[in-house]
Amino acid sequence: MDNIAVPDLNIPRVVIIGGGFGGLQVAKHLKNKEVQIVLIDRNNYHTFQPLLYQVATAGLEADSIAFPIRKLFKGYKNFTFRNATVRKVSPEDKTIQTNIGNLTYDYLIIATGSRTNFFGLEDIQNNSMPLKTVIQALDLRHLMLQNFEKALITTDLKKRESLMNFVLVGAGPTGVEMAGALSELKRYVLPQDYPELDVRKMQVHLVEAGPRILPALNEKSSQKALDYLKNLGVNVWLGTTVMSYEDKEVKAKTPDGQVISIATQNMIWSAGVQGNIFEGINEETILRGNRLHVNQFNQVKGIKDVFAVGDVAAMISDDFPRGHPMVAPVAIQQGQLLAKNLLRQFDGQEMKPFEYHDKGSMATIGKNKAVVEVGKFRSQGLFAWFIWMFVHIMSLIGFRNKAIVFINWLWNYVNYDRGIRLIIRSFDFKLRNDRRRKEDEETVVI
Amino acid sequence: MDNIAVPDLNIPRVVIIGGGFGGLQVAKHLKNKEVQIVLIDRNNYHTFQPLLYQVATAGLEADSIAFPIRKLFKGYKNFTFRNATVRKVSPEDKTIQTNIGNLTYDYLIIATGSRTNFFGLEDIQNNSMPLKTVIQALDLRHLMLQNFEKALITTDLKKRESLMNFVLVGAGPTGVEMAGALSELKRYVLPQDYPELDVRKMQVHLVEAGPRILPALNEKSSQKALDYLKNLGVNVWLGTTVMSYEDKEVKAKTPDGQVISIATQNMIWSAGVQGNIFEGINEETILRGNRLHVNQFNQVKGIKDVFAVGDVAAMISDDFPRGHPMVAPVAIQQGQLLAKNLLRQFDGQEMKPFEYHDKGSMATIGKNKAVVEVGKFRSQGLFAWFIWMFVHIMSLIGFRNKAIVFINWLWNYVNYDRGIRLIIRSFDFKLRNDRRRKEDEETVVI
Repeated sequence: MDNIAVPDLNIPRVVIIGGGFGGLQVAKHLKNKEVQIVLIDRNNYHTFQPLLYQVATAGLEADSIAFPIRKLFKGYKNFTFRNATVRKVSPEDKTIQTNIGNLTYDYLIIATGSRTNFFGLEDIQNNSMPLKTVIQALDLRHLMLQNFEKALITTDLKKRESLMNFVLVGAGPTGVEMAGALSELKRYVLPQDYPELDVRKMQVHLVEAGPRILPALNEKSSQKALDYLKNLGVNVWLGTTVMSYEDKEVKAKTPDGQVISIATQNMIWSAGVQGNIFEGINEETILRGNRLHVNQFNQVKGIKDVFAVGDVAAMISDDFPRGHPMVAPVAIQQGQLLAKNLLRQFDGQEMKPFEYHDKGSMATIGKNKAVVEVGKFRSQGLFAWFIWMFVHIMSLIGFRNKAIVFINWLWNYVNYDRGIRLIIRSFDFKLRNDRRRKEDEETVVI
Repeated sequence: MDNIAVPDLNIPRVVIIGGGFGGLQVAKHLKNKEVQIVLIDRNNYHTFQPLLYQVATAGLEADSIAFPIRKLFKGYKNFTFRNATVRKVSPEDKTIQTNIGNLTYDYLIIATGSRTNFFGLEDIQNNSMPLKTVIQALDLRHLMLQNFEKALITTDLKKRESLMNFVLVGAGPTGVEMAGALSELKRYVLPQDYPELDVRKMQVHLVEAGPRILPALNEKSSQKALDYLKNLGVNVWLGTTVMSYEDKEVKAKTPDGQVISIATQNMIWSAGVQGNIFEGINEETILRGNRLHVNQFNQVKGIKDVFAVGDVAAMISDDFPRGHPMVAPVAIQQGQLLAKNLLRQFDGQEMKPFEYHDKGSMATIGKNKAVVEVGKFRSQGLFAWFIWMFVHIMSLIGFRNKAIVFINWLWNYVNYDRGIRLIIRSFDFKLRNDRRRKEDEETVVI
C-alpha cells in the first residue's frame, strides 16, 4: 500500500494513534514545537466517554459530548490529522499500516484506549449492548425506545416483560449511573409516554460479581450509592456472576450457588474493558487485559521509540501491581508528561518518571444524588451532585458543548424530563450486532 | 395479519397517518373530544423540515429539529401513537395495513407529506443525495465530511476536485439555502479545518431548470437572492436541465443547447417532490406528482370518510389549478380546519370550505442575508435575516429545541463556526444508497 500523504516538514515525526484523553494531551503539549504531530483516529471527533450513558438514556445529544478533532488543533503549525484505522505496527522499519495507507514515524504514541471485554463469552458478545462509543450509545437509545414501542403492541405478557426489563452487568460508574438514569426514566418519563403500559413492571437489575458496587470508592461511599440505588427501586445483585445470555434470558449464579434467570431484551454489558491493541506488538509486551507493558516514562518495553499512555498502558509498580486504574485522569496526566519528556529528550535532558495524582472518584445516581471522593474529602447527596455536574461540565471541550449540556440538564431537572427520546436509526437488532461484531474483528478499534 | 392492539374506547376512531405539520394539527384540535385519535408514523418524532439543510451543513444537531411525538400528546385522554409503516388502505372494509398489523378506522386522515421526486432518472436516484428526512440530512453531513477527508489523501487532482465540488439541483428554498450554507462553510470553516487543501478549488453549483431561483417569491426578491448567492461565489445555472449523473459526473444542458459536465461526488437533488401514497387508492384519484385529489373539505374524491391534508393533497380550484403550494402553512391550516370540520360533522353542522391564507415566503442566504415576503411587505438583507431567524425559532416545537437552536446560531454567528462537524456514522456510499433505495421501494414512506 502507498504511504499516506502528509506534509514533509523535515523535523522528527511523532505519530499519535487515538484522539482520546491521552492522545489529545500529547498533541496539545507539542504545539508549535520542533516536531511534526500526526494524529490518527477512526473518528473525526473526540468522545467524552463519562457522559455516554446520558446519550444512551435520552438525556443528552450525541453531538454535545463529541468534539471535532480538527477544530481543536486549529492554528497549530505542526499538526496533521488523518481519519484512519490502524491495522498493524512494524517497529523494525518504524511504520504503521492503516486502512488508507502506511505511515512512517520517528516516535509512536499508542493512545488507543480500551474497549469492552466480553471475557470470551460469545453469546453475551453477540446479544448484549456495550457502551464505549457514541455509536453504541445511540444504538442503545434506539434499542430501548424501540423495545418500548414493541412492548405496547404485544399481547404476550412474558414477552412484554422481557422487552421492558433491563439487566446491567458490572457495577462500576457506567453500570451504576446507567441504573440510576434508567430508574428515573421509569419514574418520570415512561409512564407519561406510555400510559397504556404498566411501567411498574419494568425492572432494572444491576449484577456485580464483586462484593460491592463502585469498588474504586471507599466502602462508605459505596454503601451510600447502594442505598440510593435501592431507593430508586434498582435490584442489585452482589457477588453474582453472569453465566450466559441466550434466548433473551440472562442466567447468573448468586453467592449461595443458586442459578437465577431474568428475561430481558435489554442487556447492557459494562463488566470489563481491555486495551485496544493491534498486530505487530511482541506478545511478551501484552499484559493481562490487553494492556501494553510500559516503564515509568511510558516507553513500551522492548520497542524503541514506541510509547503508550492511558487505558492501553500498564505501568507496573509496587503501588499499582496491575497498572493504574483505567480512567481519564491517568491518561491526561500521562499524556502531558510524555509530551514534556519527549521535548526533554530532544534537548538532551533526562526524562521524568510518571507519578499519579489521584483526582478522586465520583458517580451520580439520579437527581440530587451523587457520591464524591477527593483524597480525604468525601461528600454525598445534593452537594456531591452539584460537584459532579460542575466537574463534568467544566471537563467538556468547547463553550458550545458546555452551554448545551447545561441547558439540557437544567431542562431535565426542572421538568423531570429527558428530551432526546428519538429513534433516529431503525436498524434491526441483527444488523446492529453484525456491525458491532465486524468492528470488533478489525485489528484495532480506536 | 392481526389487528394492532389499541385501546377500545367505543367512540368514533380517527386514524391519522403521518406526524408532520398537517397530521399534528388534526390531532391537536381533537384533544379530549368525543373521538379516539390514533396517530401512525414511521418515526417516533416530528421533523421540522425547513431546517434540515442546517443539520446537513453541520450547523445544528439533528435532535434539536426533531421532537418526540409521544411527548407532544402527553395528557391527551383520547390519543394513541403507533410507530409503524403503512402499506395499504382498504376503503371497502375501512382498514389500513401496516408492518405491525391491521387497524380499522371510522375516519382516515392521510397526512403523509411528500418525498423526493427523481422523475424516473434512475442514475440520479441511485447516486445523488436527497434531503427530506433527518436520516438523509445526517447522511449528507457525513458524506460531505468524509469526502473532504478523502480529498486530503488523494494525489489525483481531478479526483480531489470532484470530492470537493458540490452540485445542487433545484433552486427552491432547500437548494438556495443549502448553497448559501455551503459557501459559508467554504469561506469560514473548511480553510481552518483543512489547511493543507486549497479550498478555493471547491465549487458550489446551483442548477435550476426554470428561468429564476426561488420561483415562489416575487421577481425582485428572487433577483436579490441571486445577487447574494453570486456574491458568495455560487455558480448559478439558470434554464439548465440536468440530464444524467454517472461516473461521478453531472451532465446538464444550458439554455443555448450546450452540454456541460461537472465532476462531483457531492450531488444533492432537491429538484422536485411527490406525494407519499400507498396501495389501495383508486388511480383516478391520484393526480400529477402523486397527490390525492381532494375537495374543498379535504375529502379524498370518491372515497368515503377518507381525508388528505398538506403536501399529499391536491385541492384544485381556479386560484390553484394544480393545488396549493407544498409548504408547511398549507398543511397546518388544512389540518386545523379538518379537525374542526370533523367535529362540526359529528354535531350535525355543515363543514366549512378551506381558504388559504398565504403567510408569505422567505429564504436565508448566509449570514445577515435573507429575503422575506409577507403579502405586500417585502424585506431583504439584515432585517429580513432577523425575521427569518425569529420565525424559524418560534416555529420549533418545545422550549428545549428553541433554546438549543438559538445557542447554536449565536455561537455560529459570533465565531463564524459550524460546531457539529462530526462523522458519527461511517457507512460507505453504497450502503447508504442501498438503504435509501430500499426505503423508496416500500409502499409508503412517511
